[in-house]
Amino acid sequence: MTTQMIILNGGSSAGKSGIVRCLQAELPDQWLAFGADSLIDAMPARMQTSDGGIEISTDGEVAIGADFRALEQAWAQGVVAMAHAGARIIIDDIFLGGAASQRRWQKLLDGLDVLWVGVRCDSAVAAGREIARGDRVRGMAAAQANIVHEGVHYDLEVDTTHTESLTCARTIAAHVS
Amino acid sequence: MTTQMIILNGGSSAGKSGIVRCLQAELPDQWLAFGADSLIDAMPARMQTSDGGIEISTDGEVAIGADFRALEQAWAQGVVAMAHAGARIIIDDIFLGGAASQRRWQKLLDGLDVLWVGVRCDSAVAAGREIARGDRVRGMAAAQANIVHEGVHYDLEVDTTHTESLTCARTIAAHVS
Amino acid sequence: MTTQMIILNGGSSAGKSGIVRCLQAELPDQWLAFGADSLIDAMPARMQTSDGGIEISTDGEVAIGADFRALEQAWAQGVVAMAHAGARIIIDDIFLGGAASQRRWQKLLDGLDVLWVGVRCDSAVAAGREIARGDRVRGMAAAQANIVHEGVHYDLEVDTTHTESLTCARTIAAHVS
Amino acid sequence: MTTQMIILNGGSSAGKSGIVRCLQAELPDQWLAFGADSLIDAMPARMQTSDGGIEISTDGEVAIGADFRALEQAWAQGVVAMAHAGARIIIDDIFLGGAASQRRWQKLLDGLDVLWVGVRCDSAVAAGREIARGDRVRGMAAAQANIVHEGVHYDLEVDTTHTESLTCARTIAAHVS
Repeated sequence: MTTQMIILNGGSSAGKSGIVRCLQAELPDQWLAFGADSLIDAMPARMQTSDGGIEISTDGEVAIGADFRALEQAWAQGVVAMAHAGARIIIDDIFLGGAASQRRWQKLLDGLDVLWVGVRCDSAVAAGREIARGDRVRGMAAAQANIVHEGVHYDLEVDTTHTESLTCARTIAAHVS
Repeated sequence: MTTQMIILNGGSSAGKSGIVRCLQAELPDQWLAFGADSLIDAMPARMQTSDGGIEISTDGEVAIGADFRALEQAWAQGVVAMAHAGARIIIDDIFLGGAASQRRWQKLLDGLDVLWVGVRCDSAVAAGREIARGDRVRGMAAAQANIVHEGVHYDLEVDTTHTESLTCARTIAAHVS
Repeated sequence: MTTQMIILNGGSSAGKSGIVRCLQAELPDQWLAFGADSLIDAMPARMQTSDGGIEISTDGEVAIGADFRALEQAWAQGVVAMAHAGARIIIDDIFLGGAASQRRWQKLLDGLDVLWVGVRCDSAVAAGREIARGDRVRGMAAAQANIVHEGVHYDLEVDTTHTESLTCARTIAAHVS
Repeated sequence: MTTQMIILNGGSSAGKSGIVRCLQAELPDQWLAFGADSLIDAMPARMQTSDGGIEISTDGEVAIGADFRALEQAWAQGVVAMAHAGARIIIDDIFLGGAASQRRWQKLLDGLDVLWVGVRCDSAVAAGREIARGDRVRGMAAAQANIVHEGVHYDLEVDTTHTESLTCARTIAAHVS
């Protein structure tokens, strides 16, 4: 059986994007990568200020509206279709709803062979990296560090607190068949 | 009948991205936007230096390899699936193969209601805007300005040479049902 | 006499950055470019949310605080020093205070040979380009289009409403000695 | 005595930018930050492809030409002038010439109170982070990791191999008077 999709879940500033780029560099095939950031980029700019969209409060709390959820659902179906069409896909997502977010993906996967990966990072360390990035609302990393993993089942977990992105990526790559 | 997808085709620096952002702002529904740039962002970085990927020569000629084409094909199928799942989609593409590029899309569209839009720009003007952007290899705009439209059929054409992005977007929006 | 500094003034989305990149491409010497955007990038991120920094209201009004002004003043002195040290410098600025902003520069220039350039753009056109950029708070372009020019004296004015960046740059370049 | 400038030196991908942003967040005053990246952004785009500019070979070797050096020298004088004008300044630089690069700065500093900081990172770890960033030519991190420190004297050294940016920044901040 061949891994068709890798889904990484972790809080903001846990280090998902770095792992994704290392996975794309390390894996012998060409994998396409999508995620929460590229989805938001694909949406109208007004989704970031309107009801129904995504609102990030000044303390880093994220509220997701109905319009956002509807687009996200169709987007996820399309990403699954890319995998069925033969592309190998890496997703980095933030399961704000924990187990419920995972179930939303599972309902769409339709027989795909998926590797589920939890990307953990100590809350205080992620909060520090959020400051070092400089382009994120402070508070998101701490708010999300734990709740995104509640009730979620993984094939594999990595922890970036003391482990480099490339090392995490190699651990994940070893589980790709 | 409801327009489910808008496909914009035009050469590099013809002004497609600006029109897309204006369309997203002007259209009453929330449309997702994807295109050549976001596809390349989703690919491994090495695709921009490897055989099989995309190579841009120092004079702006673009060569597309087999690996790129395979990922692009699966990506396009996924984008079509997003539209079938209910998302309204805007694509900005560069039909380097002219009519053959359009046929590749048409084979996938499977009954979707698509609005085909040609985005033209005078070659010299596009070349000037390429300099003003500062982040593109010079020569792409001039090399692509005309060939991307060869043999392509549109519902509508706009020309950014003397018309602002917002005005072009409103013209297009008037054709969206 | 040799032009040592070019100072462009115009409202947000009037097209200053595009003109700057074209000037850098067209002028035979190597010119360094700085401006309002690069200054903000050099400041702590918290300057964009704190009293004393720069605050952009949701309708595009910009308020500048005392800390911002102090850093800006020292930055401007440094930029002038670069010119005295032999670098040719292009500045793109937004004279929110009109004539008073120009006088702040003039007090620092200390014998430098400066070419003052007004970059105008019809307010409605600039507002449309603001939408096309997608990364600016809407309202800034319209709010600034005229006030930044009030009482300011120029050697030369260009208007991007109907003229391309590259053409404007060539007009300016013809006045550089 | 008050620290007027902090100069960080380290190889590409050693983690300088993250430390700078943390310093700006942690230090009570407002510090301006400049460095190799912002200098290159200020130069004409053609400096990255021309003789006299900066050339990065496909294996990550960096060659600096005479035009680049001349602009850099004037830029450094201007940055020093900003500090004399009262702005507190953080510089992140890459001393490709080791001790000679430090001497170039020292000749300009003219009585300023400078805190010299070495930012070290294990070569293999920096090379891994270069992959995780995805936007750098591979090989730069490894090529520069050690040579930039040769013969350079510091007030303080930090090592990002096993220490977070924020922790390094706090160590540095404790030495700022």
